[in-house]
Amino acid sequence: MSRTEYQILRLLATGPKDFWQLISKQDTSIKEFAQELKNLCRRGVIKKENGLFELNREKIDRKINKYFESCCRVCGDGIDFTRDFKTLLNNFEKAVEKRPLPREEYDQGFMRIEDTVKRAIFMYERADVEKKNIFILGDDDLLSLAIGLMGFANLVTVAEVDERIVDFIRKRAKDLGISSIRTVNYNALNELPFNLCGQYDTFVTDPVETLPGLKIFIARCMKSLKGAGSSGYFGLTHLEASLKKWWEIEKFLLNCSFVITDILRDFSLYPEDENRWEKFYQSYRLIKEIPDVGLPGVDWYRSSFFRIEAVNEINFLQLPLLSFSEELYLDDETWATPHS
Amino acid sequence: MSRTEYQILRLLATGPKDFWQLISKQDTSIKEFAQELKNLCRRGVIKKENGLFELNREKIDRKINKYFESCCRVCGDGIDFTRDFKTLLNNFEKAVEKRPLPREEYDQGFMRIEDTVKRAIFMYERADVEKKNIFILGDDDLLSLAIGLMGFANLVTVAEVDERIVDFIRKRAKDLGISSIRTVNYNALNELPFNLCGQYDTFVTDPVETLPGLKIFIARCMKSLKGAGSSGYFGLTHLEASLKKWWEIEKFLLNCSFVITDILRDFSLYPEDENRWEKFYQSYRLIKEIPDVGLPGVDWYRSSFFRIEAVNEINFLQLPLLSFSEELYLDDETWATPHS
Repeated sequence: MSRTEYQILRLLATGPKDFWQLISKQDTSIKEFAQELKNLCRRGVIKKENGLFELNREKIDRKINKYFESCCRVCGDGIDFTRDFKTLLNNFEKAVEKRPLPREEYDQGFMRIEDTVKRAIFMYERADVEKKNIFILGDDDLLSLAIGLMGFANLVTVAEVDERIVDFIRKRAKDLGISSIRTVNYNALNELPFNLCGQYDTFVTDPVETLPGLKIFIARCMKSLKGAGSSGYFGLTHLEASLKKWWEIEKFLLNCSFVITDILRDFSLYPEDENRWEKFYQSYRLIKEIPDVGLPGVDWYRSSFFRIEAVNEINFLQLPLLSFSEELYLDDETWATPHS
Repeated sequence: MSRTEYQILRLLATGPKDFWQLISKQDTSIKEFAQELKNLCRRGVIKKENGLFELNREKIDRKINKYFESCCRVCGDGIDFTRDFKTLLNNFEKAVEKRPLPREEYDQGFMRIEDTVKRAIFMYERADVEKKNIFILGDDDLLSLAIGLMGFANLVTVAEVDERIVDFIRKRAKDLGISSIRTVNYNALNELPFNLCGQYDTFVTDPVETLPGLKIFIARCMKSLKGAGSSGYFGLTHLEASLKKWWEIEKFLLNCSFVITDILRDFSLYPEDENRWEKFYQSYRLIKEIPDVGLPGVDWYRSSFFRIEAVNEINFLQLPLLSFSEELYLDDETWATPHS
């Protein structure tokens, strides 16, 4: 089922709608939307009466979940998870209790609980969650659990190098009865295992921010995708990646046949208190370069959230070769990444 | 003065701040930020005492306006203009009273009042307004008046083909005592006049959405810019531009040496009632393709907002040649654009 088809059907599951109400809540072009609507009518999945479209329940062979609203009532742009997703936030908060703390050797650090839920909701809004296979490379944010708790995804696979996180996710998913989550111990320095290639509709990752690191992480994720029409999400900061690096990575994305559909500035904030990073700071270049800077009293580290979508078959490019693993983690701009 | 310098100084104008508070409200990398902070200290423009930076008023030769907060208190992502920009919204509402209504021949239609103000605030947040020269190509949204009312810009030039709009902006700016606004009657089909080239720090435009149209509008705007470090903003819809067209235009931007820094989905909504478009609809392809669709009872037409920034000297590419002016306005995807 295409994204547009989901966006139409889930909205109709809230009640009959006219053409204009439907097109207000979908992502594609008028031309493609009209085609999709025509197809659904022809197949009898929806019917039109007095100018209103409605679901034809007799012709629908599976449950259509109703659309969950999350548009911020104040600004109209951000995500207000207290609308239809309030339970999700509460459940996720409980699910991540006693989570593993960040480890220096993997450049870890997790975002705020609400920001993880926001990611899941933004993906849901784009119709990248319902009945989809989702590949997550590195998941100290525990996004898999947030998506799993939604109950809409077909499969969520977490590929993660840190066994503590693999174990935590596996255990919590079991305790919570989330059957859609699979975990695999995987280091992104290696090729993606064959059985994970070409299986997924979308991916999510937070790459290390050197240029080779970014390319390698994203390319591994691209390998997991089915092809044209598949999407991907990743975080990227301005703090450790200059605009020249952004330009390089955008060039790379376009050359791989992906279009950038969203760049949400500073969508994720990394809380100091919960990450307990104090001792990491000593090895940051930032601390060495700026005398007497002290430890932060506010949450300052943040990243922007990219969404990309393959407009054609994916074009896999030659990846950079690394002589030292340090090249993956550190360059002249990574001032808040631990030096070993 | 660089963007980062402005972002530091305007925040310090609200009171002393430590390193972490300052870096929380700026856009550049840690490395570049630390360098800028060091320069400001060395020049004596700011001083550091007990770990806090503060303005050294004796060394500042011009007024530094304090930072205006606009971050949405509910979702933390969108813009809440009722915080420090409430007066701006009210004043803009009055300034646009009796504005010219859209004309079919120019594919016009203006966004909601609050969305125009949101654009101005987002640009302000990026430090693209204060003391800057801003070039606006086509301004039926009257963004020039919103920016002018802020009182922060150095110069706002509106290049506009429709004399009614030129006259309206000129008259209102005069009535309101906004001296920063200049207007020029200009058709984007022609080369940008020499005296407008290379003069501006940022541009804003809402291009027609055919591929040649997009390239021509954006390239004219790029010509107005000073060069590396200059920025630009434009609207682009999903409704009349497929993702393949998005990919083409992103490729074009990158090849011109611009990086995409923001894509804000559906940031602007176009109100049906105020635009009084009813009679335009008859000539839309949408109406011909979809029988009995009727006129919309909800606002449905919307566009995403792009921000781009030149990471190097701008690379001006060969522009498409048009045989008919129709090629500028219409293609197979422009289903809500008037056919003449």
